[in-house]
Amino acid sequence: MNPPILSHLDLELIVDVPLTPEQLFEGWTNPDILKKWFCPKPWKVAQCSIDLRPGGLFSNVMQSPEGELMPENRGCYLLIEKPTRLVWTGILQEDFRPNPIPQLGFGFVCDLRFTPLAQGGSRFHAVVKHTDTEGKAKHEAMGFDQGWRLALSQLVELHQSLR
Amino acid sequence: MNPPILSHLDLELIVDVPLTPEQLFEGWTNPDILKKWFCPKPWKVAQCSIDLRPGGLFSNVMQSPEGELMPENRGCYLLIEKPTRLVWTGILQEDFRPNPIPQLGFGFVCDLRFTPLAQGGSRFHAVVKHTDTEGKAKHEAMGFDQGWRLALSQLVELHQSLR
Repeated sequence: MNPPILSHLDLELIVDVPLTPEQLFEGWTNPDILKKWFCPKPWKVAQCSIDLRPGGLFSNVMQSPEGELMPENRGCYLLIEKPTRLVWTGILQEDFRPNPIPQLGFGFVCDLRFTPLAQGGSRFHAVVKHTDTEGKAKHEAMGFDQGWRLALSQLVELHQSLR
Repeated sequence: MNPPILSHLDLELIVDVPLTPEQLFEGWTNPDILKKWFCPKPWKVAQCSIDLRPGGLFSNVMQSPEGELMPENRGCYLLIEKPTRLVWTGILQEDFRPNPIPQLGFGFVCDLRFTPLAQGGSRFHAVVKHTDTEGKAKHEAMGFDQGWRLALSQLVELHQSLR
């Protein structure tokens, strides 16, 4: 059962993709694959570290087109149900240690579901839950919907290029 | 292996008690038992709701000696390893939804370990991890050490009275 969506706090993205739940799950949890798609080009993921257990580190560093490294994002996993669900947050880091309020001014919990479709492929369903309405609004204004769609399309392209 | 303690962010309490890990675990996770010891008398726990799964609700309402009900504390469980470990937080609530910054001005993650001792009884080990040094200092000044010791002694007395 899906948890309720609160429209003033949550951003939601639903996209049907020609990938299996296993491919989506691996794309999100294998650092070598994640680095190839997670950031809309010409930005890129310069570093990624993943310790796939509850309380395990999920860390990445973004790099600008000019080569500038952004501050490290350090989060952790909350729930792992391979290959259909993955919940992580930047509000807590390794071993569930609370993170300081992030530079962007908002934290969130990302609840991902990868559900197989009868006709093949999967439904990618992300619910991104923010601490307050301002955080949700900032994230939305930063281009959440476009950015996450673009990144996801890069994962699809990556798999198509491997065929 | 125990995670590192950060002295500027964490409060730690280690107490050896004449209870089994199972009794400690049940004391922390059975609402009917928790209500009898969790709050140092003459305060009490007026309501307690527990959904013992990762992301499940851990809620309680304290009541003053004059009968005044405090705001509900809504948290959730992060890690459940019955009967030796329990991690919960008030930074997130049900279904890992982020909580607003709490009224007290600080949030924390509570990491509990219940380890059997060779001579009988158990070692109760709590590490309470705060978002920032101010939060840790506030929690300490509120009487963390004395309050948690007193509550724990109430759980021990409860079991002794049942013998």
